[in-house]
Amino acid sequence: MRVLGIDPGLTRCGVGVVEGDPGRTPTLLLADVIRTASDLETGQRLAALERSLVQYLAEYRPDAIAVERPFARRDVSTIIGTVQAAGVVLLVGTRAGLSVAQHTPTEVKASITGSGRADKAQIGHMVMRILKLDAPPQPADAADAVALAVCHLWRAPAIARIEQARERAELAQSIAQCRARARERRLG
Amino acid sequence: MRVLGIDPGLTRCGVGVVEGDPGRTPTLLLADVIRTASDLETGQRLAALERSLVQYLAEYRPDAIAVERPFARRDVSTIIGTVQAAGVVLLVGTRAGLSVAQHTPTEVKASITGSGRADKAQIGHMVMRILKLDAPPQPADAADAVALAVCHLWRAPAIARIEQARERAELAQSIAQCRARARERRLG
Repeated sequence: MRVLGIDPGLTRCGVGVVEGDPGRTPTLLLADVIRTASDLETGQRLAALERSLVQYLAEYRPDAIAVERPFARRDVSTIIGTVQAAGVVLLVGTRAGLSVAQHTPTEVKASITGSGRADKAQIGHMVMRILKLDAPPQPADAADAVALAVCHLWRAPAIARIEQARERAELAQSIAQCRARARERRLG
Repeated sequence: MRVLGIDPGLTRCGVGVVEGDPGRTPTLLLADVIRTASDLETGQRLAALERSLVQYLAEYRPDAIAVERPFARRDVSTIIGTVQAAGVVLLVGTRAGLSVAQHTPTEVKASITGSGRADKAQIGHMVMRILKLDAPPQPADAADAVALAVCHLWRAPAIARIEQARERAELAQSIAQCRARARERRLG
């Protein structure tokens, strides 16, 4: 399974691609940052980001995308660009027919380092160890994107199992409802 | 000048098109709402919104787009969909080579009703009077989008004048700097 991880942003958007199978060391294929000039209008920056994402999808052909879920306790005005960049990732991925999973920063940190409160240096260090690299991917936004991709690689089977269990439960419920209605009709 | 106004949203996205010249009653060409199903994933809703916006641009060929600027004192989690919908409007408009202006709700209200604190009913009423309609556009999101388009029709000349004045001031400043440097070289 090949996963494209995205740490969304307009000034710096982290991009990472990893490939792996359960129980094996995942392989790092890409750790990069997409930059857009801050003197451009927001629409132009979003369009530049879209073009880069389309290129990465064509080049790396991932099976899934994982993007950081916008999650803020801060004033929205400071993160509007990030939220809109995440929206462009959702849009481009969906248009390409891919599943785009959203993970919160806490989920990524907990998955990679074992602690939901890890700092950037700890994430970079653990990404280096997990992927058996000589140094953490640089800059930090690229390492965060790689961490997102690894997190998804590890969480995806569990998420799929939960989804299957939910579907089975829904199916069982609707069968039970059908039977109950049929019984009522026989008795009515 | 023909303006497409957008009141962004995923569940209901207001769309309005008005056409007008200075000093004349603007003409209403469209007041509509784009809806996307709330049981779809965000990426699918953004993609559906994008498709509708592209269709409206092809059909109405506006000269400019005006979208509500995300502006929130609330928790960001409640308006992420709206902020991402506004991002898709910026993206689609920019890709089509159009200028996409952002106006805050207060600017729109002040421009249309004379008060930045007008409610939805007052906006609908003033839109009806300005465009000489028999009733306010329905639903309220469509009326808000029409108000945005009218606001832009009225503010666009002023914004253009301010932009020109800013460019003239920057030009004058760089000429002055060139002259100062030339004088220093002669004296140095």
